[in-house]
Order: sequence, then structure tokens, then C-alpha cells
Amino acid sequence: MSAQTITSSAQDVRRQIRSNEWRGITSGVAPGHVQANLAILPQDLAFDFLLFCQRNPKPCPLLEVIEPGKVEPALTSPGADIRTDAAGYRIYEHGQLTAEVDTIEDYWRDDLVSFLLGCSFSFETAMLEAGIPLRHQETGSNVAMYITNIATTPAGVFSGPIVVSMRPVKRDQIVRAVQVTSRFPATHGAPVHIGSPHDIGIGDISKPDFGDPIEIKANEEPVFWACGVTPQAVALTCKPPLMITHAPGKMFITDQRDADYAVI
Amino acid sequence: MSAQTITSSAQDVRRQIRSNEWRGITSGVAPGHVQANLAILPQDLAFDFLLFCQRNPKPCPLLEVIEPGKVEPALTSPGADIRTDAAGYRIYEHGQLTAEVDTIEDYWRDDLVSFLLGCSFSFETAMLEAGIPLRHQETGSNVAMYITNIATTPAGVFSGPIVVSMRPVKRDQIVRAVQVTSRFPATHGAPVHIGSPHDIGIGDISKPDFGDPIEIKANEEPVFWACGVTPQAVALTCKPPLMITHAPGKMFITDQRDADYAVI
Repeated sequence: MSAQTITSSAQDVRRQIRSNEWRGITSGVAPGHVQANLAILPQDLAFDFLLFCQRNPKPCPLLEVIEPGKVEPALTSPGADIRTDAAGYRIYEHGQLTAEVDTIEDYWRDDLVSFLLGCSFSFETAMLEAGIPLRHQETGSNVAMYITNIATTPAGVFSGPIVVSMRPVKRDQIVRAVQVTSRFPATHGAPVHIGSPHDIGIGDISKPDFGDPIEIKANEEPVFWACGVTPQAVALTCKPPLMITHAPGKMFITDQRDADYAVI
Repeated sequence: MSAQTITSSAQDVRRQIRSNEWRGITSGVAPGHVQANLAILPQDLAFDFLLFCQRNPKPCPLLEVIEPGKVEPALTSPGADIRTDAAGYRIYEHGQLTAEVDTIEDYWRDDLVSFLLGCSFSFETAMLEAGIPLRHQETGSNVAMYITNIATTPAGVFSGPIVVSMRPVKRDQIVRAVQVTSRFPATHGAPVHIGSPHDIGIGDISKPDFGDPIEIKANEEPVFWACGVTPQAVALTCKPPLMITHAPGKMFITDQRDADYAVI
């Protein structure tokens, strides 16, 4: 990707993706724009999943829900096409990953409902702007993610534990980290836990369930945020006949600005 | 109502309502507890209405949605029964008010989905605690409500204008009023407009569409908040075969505390 692309508008990046000019990890692309996790499900599961998100806003912060069969995220990204404009997609059938594809036009059905969910890139920007470093970015790693013993609130067929991401924060910056991320409930918001991993059912902090392990220094505490992996993991446990998600790291970039979602 | 009742717990008040010991306007009852507007709709409208609320969180702040046929608001008020524990109910059939009743057991069906929505009592408490007087309370009136030219974001069969409530606020207290109500997005949150009623399509501020007119003094501005009348008005425009709401002023009192819903 050229430097020009990195500073492009969200529309420009989506156009490049749609025309197959560029397709890659979207971290740091179109900075300041809200990026979305995708979960696309058949209509007969949509009420339960929408209710699940309503009941679990920290792991499942809804940015937009596109009505059955419609493909334009008209509220967050007018003119976009949810079938072609994410940087990559995964196809799950009956709970099994069966394909990773560039576009989902061949899988599209008139009964599919698309859910766009906030991702951690927005609050990570807020942390960096507040002078709180992010070690996984500095080391070029993926963030460390863990399955916890914190249950989501079930809804219909959907239930399961909250998955968290962990970032080590210096003790003298923890208060500020809580404050700046609290402003963004639409993108996971405030932490769900600070300190002792055992308290939330994490046996070995050096062995994340997803992503890469990350060092915690003596003057730091592990700080845990609800993670967008949660809704995908929960949805897959009920083995829907078809579920489509974005490919890891290849998000859908909306026209919205991080600042649009700050509650204060 | 005895003074004892007014300071009772939410459970005590609901028990008194259920046993028909007391039934009245719930303003000021069980202070500090979150009170809910009710909208109960058949299941075939539930996805659209849930999506409508998700898209319009200021007029339609969801506290809880009870799944089809279930009667216990288990998340906000364990042990309560949505059919008997509100202080009064209205029955609408095909968009027409056909009955006002004490309980809805005779109307209950297994396909009904209950929506509990935040009401303004919570943020009014926050305003009073911040020293911002509420003239409609001082004069024993109902708050003034107006149909605006601000459109809600449609979802499925549901669309229509936002209804607002108006409270006059002294100019030197407007900033504080914005701050303290912003903390409570689950109960309508920050104002939607400050000043000129004409800007939001209100032709004559002395003639509210609902509630009572209220004086605005020379050192005050009218401040407008999204109002819980909006979802009821919008739902009725599509003339559902059956819709049940609480009776005006006779809310469902949850076990939740106002403070539980403060975002910061």
C-alpha cells in the first residue's frame, strides 16, 4: 500500500478494495475513521442476534444493522456495498470455516442480515492520543485475546463467554486509560477488568486463546477490554447454516469518524 | 399513597400494584429507581421495532427486551411480571385506543414481545441534584411535548418524527444541564436542541402537542430532549393488530438504580 492510500478517505479505500487495487490488513488505514467487524446471518436468526447485541453492548457494540437482503450500509457508509467493500471475508457453514474470499456476491441471499460492530481500533487511537503506548502495535504483534469466565447475557439461541483483549498499561496511566476509552461505548468502551487475570478465569496470561502473547512489565497491570471476537464466537456455537464475517484484520471501513461516537 | 410507600423499594411498590393495594402516577415513587415506558408488540413486528430502537437510541433508549411470550423482565427486575406490575396499561388495536386496564393478563399472547424503554424521570433527578429547577414539577403540570420536523431513522415498517419534551433552563445553567443529562444515554441523554423552537418545526411553543404549556422566562431558553412518546407514536402509525403500552404517567418501576446507567 502506498503512503497515499494510507491517508485516503474511507470512500477511496473502499473503492480500491472493490476494484481489487488493494486488499490488506486495515489497521492504520483511513485513520480517524471507524472500522467495523462484520457478522452476516440469515433472517431467522436476526432477531435473536440483534437482541444478543442489545443485551451485551460491551462485546457487541452495534454500529449499524442492514435490513434483510439489503447491501448498502446507508447510515454509516452511504453508497458502499457490504458484499464487496470489506478487505476480505470468511464463510462459515454449520459452524465450520469453509472458505476465505475477496467478495461475497456468490454467497449473497435475500434473507441475509448484516451486522456492523465496533472494533478496538477507535479506542486504541484515543489511547495513543492520550500518550498511552500500545505494546502489541510497537512489536508488530496481534493483540492478545482470552476466553474468560464472564458470561454474556444470553438471548434466544445465543450464549457464551466474553472474549477479552489485553493491553498492558503502566499503573500511573490506568486511570487515564479508563477515562479515554469510556468515551467510546460504540467501540467496546471502558475496560471490563483491571489486574489479576485469574479473577476472570484466565489461567495463564502468557498463553492467549487468540492473537499473540505480550509482555507485562513490573510497573504495569494487564487491562482487559471486551473484544469483537465475542459475537462471532457466540454466533458460531449455534452452528448457523450460513454465517459470513470479515477476515481477521480485514475490516469494513465506514465513513464515520471516531469523534462522531464519543459520548462526551 | 402513604409516605412509607413513596420511599419503598421498587419490589414493594410492584407488590402493592400487583395486589391492587395502590395504583397511581409513579412520578417520585421509589426514588432513585429507573422507571420504564412499555411497548408490547406481536413477534412479527419485533425485529423491525428492535432495529428502530437501535437506530434511534435518543427517543428509544432500550432498557430491556423480553423474548416472545415471556413475562419476566429478568435483567432489570427479576421476579416481576410485565402483565401485572405496571401501574396501568393501554390497549391499542389497529392503532386505536380500545381499553385502559389495570392488568393485561386477559390480553396476553405467546407471541408478544415486551420492550422496556428509559424515561425522563432519571435525568430529571440528575437535573434537580445539580440545582436546575423543573418548572413543570413546581407547577404540578405535565411536561410540554411537541412533534418536531426531526425525522427518526426508519426501520422496516416504522418511521415518523421525533417527539420532544421541553424544559425551560436559565441561560447560566444550560451547560450544566447538557453535562448532567449526557451521563444518562439510557434515559434519553443529552438534549436534541437548545433555543429557537422554529428550527425544529415547532410553530407555537405555547401550544404543545401533548402535556401542558409551560412559561419560558426572559432569562431562559427552551431546551428540548427526545421523548419516550416517540416510539409509541411511531409504532401506532403502522396500526399493529395489537399494541399494549403503560398508561400515561403509570410506569413500570425497575429494580435498577439511576446510577447504574450513568456512562461516566
